Amino acid sequence: MLDLGALEEAARGSLPQAAYDYIAGGAEDERTMADNVAAWDRVRLRPRVLRDVSGVDTRITVLGHEVAAPILVAPTAAHRLVHPDGEAATAAGTAAAGSLLVLSTRTTVPVEEVAPHLGGAPWWLQVYVVTDKQYTADIVTAAVAHGCTGLVLTGDTPVIGRRRRDERNHFSYGGKPGTSLGLDQDPAVTFDAVTWLHEHGRGLPVMVKGVLRDDDARACVDAGAAAVIVSNHGGRQLDGALATADALPEVVEAVAGRAEVYVDGGVRRGADVVRALALGARAVLLGRPVVWGLATGGADGVRDVLDGLRLELARDMALSGAPTVADVTADLVFRG
Amino acid sequence: MLDLGALEEAARGSLPQAAYDYIAGGAEDERTMADNVAAWDRVRLRPRVLRDVSGVDTRITVLGHEVAAPILVAPTAAHRLVHPDGEAATAAGTAAAGSLLVLSTRTTVPVEEVAPHLGGAPWWLQVYVVTDKQYTADIVTAAVAHGCTGLVLTGDTPVIGRRRRDERNHFSYGGKPGTSLGLDQDPAVTFDAVTWLHEHGRGLPVMVKGVLRDDDARACVDAGAAAVIVSNHGGRQLDGALATADALPEVVEAVAGRAEVYVDGGVRRGADVVRALALGARAVLLGRPVVWGLATGGADGVRDVLDGLRLELARDMALSGAPTVADVTADLVFRG
Amino acid sequence: MLDLGALEEAARGSLPQAAYDYIAGGAEDERTMADNVAAWDRVRLRPRVLRDVSGVDTRITVLGHEVAAPILVAPTAAHRLVHPDGEAATAAGTAAAGSLLVLSTRTTVPVEEVAPHLGGAPWWLQVYVVTDKQYTADIVTAAVAHGCTGLVLTGDTPVIGRRRRDERNHFSYGGKPGTSLGLDQDPAVTFDAVTWLHEHGRGLPVMVKGVLRDDDARACVDAGAAAVIVSNHGGRQLDGALATADALPEVVEAVAGRAEVYVDGGVRRGADVVRALALGARAVLLGRPVVWGLATGGADGVRDVLDGLRLELARDMALSGAPTVADVTADLVFRG
Amino acid sequence: MLDLGALEEAARGSLPQAAYDYIAGGAEDERTMADNVAAWDRVRLRPRVLRDVSGVDTRITVLGHEVAAPILVAPTAAHRLVHPDGEAATAAGTAAAGSLLVLSTRTTVPVEEVAPHLGGAPWWLQVYVVTDKQYTADIVTAAVAHGCTGLVLTGDTPVIGRRRRDERNHFSYGGKPGTSLGLDQDPAVTFDAVTWLHEHGRGLPVMVKGVLRDDDARACVDAGAAAVIVSNHGGRQLDGALATADALPEVVEAVAGRAEVYVDGGVRRGADVVRALALGARAVLLGRPVVWGLATGGADGVRDVLDGLRLELARDMALSGAPTVADVTADLVFRG
Repeated sequence: MLDLGALEEAARGSLPQAAYDYIAGGAEDERTMADNVAAWDRVRLRPRVLRDVSGVDTRITVLGHEVAAPILVAPTAAHRLVHPDGEAATAAGTAAAGSLLVLSTRTTVPVEEVAPHLGGAPWWLQVYVVTDKQYTADIVTAAVAHGCTGLVLTGDTPVIGRRRRDERNHFSYGGKPGTSLGLDQDPAVTFDAVTWLHEHGRGLPVMVKGVLRDDDARACVDAGAAAVIVSNHGGRQLDGALATADALPEVVEAVAGRAEVYVDGGVRRGADVVRALALGARAVLLGRPVVWGLATGGADGVRDVLDGLRLELARDMALSGAPTVADVTADLVFRG
Repeated sequence: MLDLGALEEAARGSLPQAAYDYIAGGAEDERTMADNVAAWDRVRLRPRVLRDVSGVDTRITVLGHEVAAPILVAPTAAHRLVHPDGEAATAAGTAAAGSLLVLSTRTTVPVEEVAPHLGGAPWWLQVYVVTDKQYTADIVTAAVAHGCTGLVLTGDTPVIGRRRRDERNHFSYGGKPGTSLGLDQDPAVTFDAVTWLHEHGRGLPVMVKGVLRDDDARACVDAGAAAVIVSNHGGRQLDGALATADALPEVVEAVAGRAEVYVDGGVRRGADVVRALALGARAVLLGRPVVWGLATGGADGVRDVLDGLRLELARDMALSGAPTVADVTADLVFRG
Repeated sequence: MLDLGALEEAARGSLPQAAYDYIAGGAEDERTMADNVAAWDRVRLRPRVLRDVSGVDTRITVLGHEVAAPILVAPTAAHRLVHPDGEAATAAGTAAAGSLLVLSTRTTVPVEEVAPHLGGAPWWLQVYVVTDKQYTADIVTAAVAHGCTGLVLTGDTPVIGRRRRDERNHFSYGGKPGTSLGLDQDPAVTFDAVTWLHEHGRGLPVMVKGVLRDDDARACVDAGAAAVIVSNHGGRQLDGALATADALPEVVEAVAGRAEVYVDGGVRRGADVVRALALGARAVLLGRPVVWGLATGGADGVRDVLDGLRLELARDMALSGAPTVADVTADLVFRG
Repeated sequence: MLDLGALEEAARGSLPQAAYDYIAGGAEDERTMADNVAAWDRVRLRPRVLRDVSGVDTRITVLGHEVAAPILVAPTAAHRLVHPDGEAATAAGTAAAGSLLVLSTRTTVPVEEVAPHLGGAPWWLQVYVVTDKQYTADIVTAAVAHGCTGLVLTGDTPVIGRRRRDERNHFSYGGKPGTSLGLDQDPAVTFDAVTWLHEHGRGLPVMVKGVLRDDDARACVDAGAAAVIVSNHGGRQLDGALATADALPEVVEAVAGRAEVYVDGGVRRGADVVRALALGARAVLLGRPVVWGLATGGADGVRDVLDGLRLELARDMALSGAPTVADVTADLVFRG
């Protein structure tokens, strides 16, 4: 049975404080990070009774790929900070759970070493459009060569949010990603980057991560995005930004079915996934909990987190009277 | 004078931790369980003054049975966990208080040994429609033979909620009920079960417990239910479900007088009963407090809890300017 | 300078615990008592600037009597519990401060011994209409004979609220008032009592204390009440009743100028008086703080509390840009 | 990197308790002071993504003066309490940061000694219109002679709020300003003072500080004010007054572009400046944090606080997708 609180505590105990803090922390006073979690709790559910839930099915597709549950792996940086096998183990665990990996640009294992551990499962690459556009184009080309089937453009990082824990710890995760300025988002980049990425990515679908507003969501779709990901970067960028659960409804309404909508931030429970789906998301992305699974159990730990959350979701779907993901509809949310 | 906090503390002190936790606990993070209590407190009352309350009368009928107060005994499992006389004592105490017992399917004293302790008072049986329908039919037949006058179909338990206290305690209350899968709700069961139960229960009225939504309430009534019980299983099933006080108004409105509406969850005070009645419930069901009474005082303990809450209700009705239950109307609730 | 927190602490230190608790406590879980205080804080003020406040005048009239400020002394029982001079000292202190005393029926100093200490200042008597109506009539007659100019009918005490502190302390303040059942409100009494009291009180104006609803307020005025006092008995009767600050606006609207409206409960600050006036009250009544003044300083202590709060009010009126009580209008309240 | 919490702690450690408390404290229970900070946090931001923020420009003009950022220095009294160079150092630090100083009437360094430290940067004088109007006229004349370009009329101090910390510490900052009654605001002063000041201030623009209401804002503008400053005096006057973040929108709407609107109170973060601008303020004024900078680092400390907050603002503008101050518009605020 999944116990993410205990898992995080175990990870905290096994990691250097600075590494733990780098992952666990958020921007400034960490209010947005905390509100991400609290906002899901504020959504009260209206479960149905006496529905036939003898065959709960959590499977969905994301951009055509079937996954075991609407729970994907969010891009998070530098997995070798917490486990020697790094992103290779994350990939293996994700594949074992039937989930989909969004590999961070800041991977500490090269793409060509990560891909074989996926066993043919689909994966997406998270990218920044950096000032040296050729650099981005090359990364994308390499990813495509190793089976990447989607590009997740992070749009909320024109500058880096202030992480006070890292300051206190004098922490930088170092190595090439941390020191290469070229890896950071070009602050001049706009929605045109969606088209540009689509073209340089051999026509791969492009998703935009970091969307918190209706107008931005429409702009993404107008620019050709296949999906938008409601995210505030786990509360690591603009402290004071609204929680993703609060932003989700307006993005869903604005997109109006023209693209898929995912959400990350603060998802810790099967019931949170039910909430996200009921508010209109097609899937959630899971960030920190996957890293705690990796830190404590390598590939198996990653798999256990994803499997555990999927089983929680299945139980909570049954308890909500929703045998399929399509049955998790807006009426499950209490409107006070 | 009733002091439920002290009573629970006394029960806690006299019971093995695992037994206490089994009863006291809820699902997952126990947020719904806590919100059940908090939601009543959020309802502020608008008491009337200068009404003639010289003769407060708390009596009502439920499905035609007169009870001393709109306070019934909710079905809770396995009373021998807390007292050697188990449900026999609960029955005796309930009858002594002029209340009505809803006996749990998971009784640890056989129906035929419980019934004689009721002294002719009406009682209802809580049932699950299980996969082996004949098993349910046999239970119902036996109950009818021992004077049962109503069937309470629990609808919110297609799977069992996760109880983390029980996990920590490696607790299962064991014995036949705990180990027989046949006893659990058939997850395929739907509103048709209301009709089926009615037919196999010799025409006894059927009530549905676990209703939290207007559409479900209407479906129950359309299927022939004589009453719906607004309940989230004491917060033991879907953590994140709304509090019963929050669900009650829409259920009352949806039922529109076509059936009786009861509510359980978090009722701890006479004023909570006033709130429930003012929000449209005909009666409340009391769960854990009855078990604490049983644990600490057997039949007398059960009676004292029920009598005590009835006296609180009588005082709070007087203080509200409501001499009869019919006077406890919606205008007693402050709408901010 | 007034410091009511320190004053209460001093009183607590000098009184037997049971006496302190009798005064400080409320009903049941004391939620309404706490909410009385919190509700004033929830009212945010919109002070004005650049008004001529060189001559702040806090004087008003209540039923034609001029008082130094819209701060009257609420009826509270048994002052000899906290000071040997009891209500005689309270009367002297009240008169010295230019305020108006509402003497409790449960006075521990006889009316004829209290009245001389008022030095001619107006005073009102709080009464219950008790089952033995002649008893009430006699009390009223005696009061009139000693200069009483108004009758405050308490309507919220058909039965006594449960005071758990007193239970714990096995406390009853004893003596004739506490033991004589005849002194308690007749639970059968209705709005007709207003007329009855008016007639038996030689035509003195009758006020009703305990009103929390618009319909009750209208019924009082229709029955001839000269004033209604928005009160929940300091949170000592129905725990769960709304705070008086929350009830005040609807009562003011319902009365529509046909009677005066006062309010008590939780007033601790000059700004609270501003809030009460801005919400439509003509004056506030001060209960527990006066008793703490009496306990710690006798008549001087009572005077100091009343003077101190008046000075706070004067300063807060100046800071609100309201030189007179008439300038404390509804627009001073922030409506979010 | 700015860490105002640590800075205040350092100042607290280096100052006598009474001096620290004089600056840090507010009126009465300090609720308004606390709410000023909390109110900004309640405003949730809706950051934009994929905007070109490669050239963030925080510069604006205030009454025609260009400043490095919409962050001005609020008038605060008696800087020599915390640093021997007093207002001279504050002036130097402000100028170094490209900000604008509003010098308090209660300066502990004479205007003629402060002005040279500004290096030609614009500065404004905060004034009270006192009972001896010639006194005020003389101060203004002297200020104009030393380059003052604007007059900030404080309107919220017809009497002084009660500062309980100062009472406890038996603190008065002494010297001429503290003891001269003539220095205090004439409580009879009204909006006419705006015109009077304008005339006696050689036509300098007059601003009114302390405005919390739409009607007052309109009255200021009608009287000729060039700007209004939404302020509750840092929570030092009427405790219970609404937070400035809550008052700002109605003032902005009432002024309707006819004057500039600034705001102070509780601004501690770059994101707070974003919030203030998004709610319609042209600039914020920073009070206590500047004094902590002065206390710990003299002119450099002042400069560092202002520079640090400007850099936070620049980052948060970038993270909000707002490259210029004009891009910080109302749609950045989440309306729930």
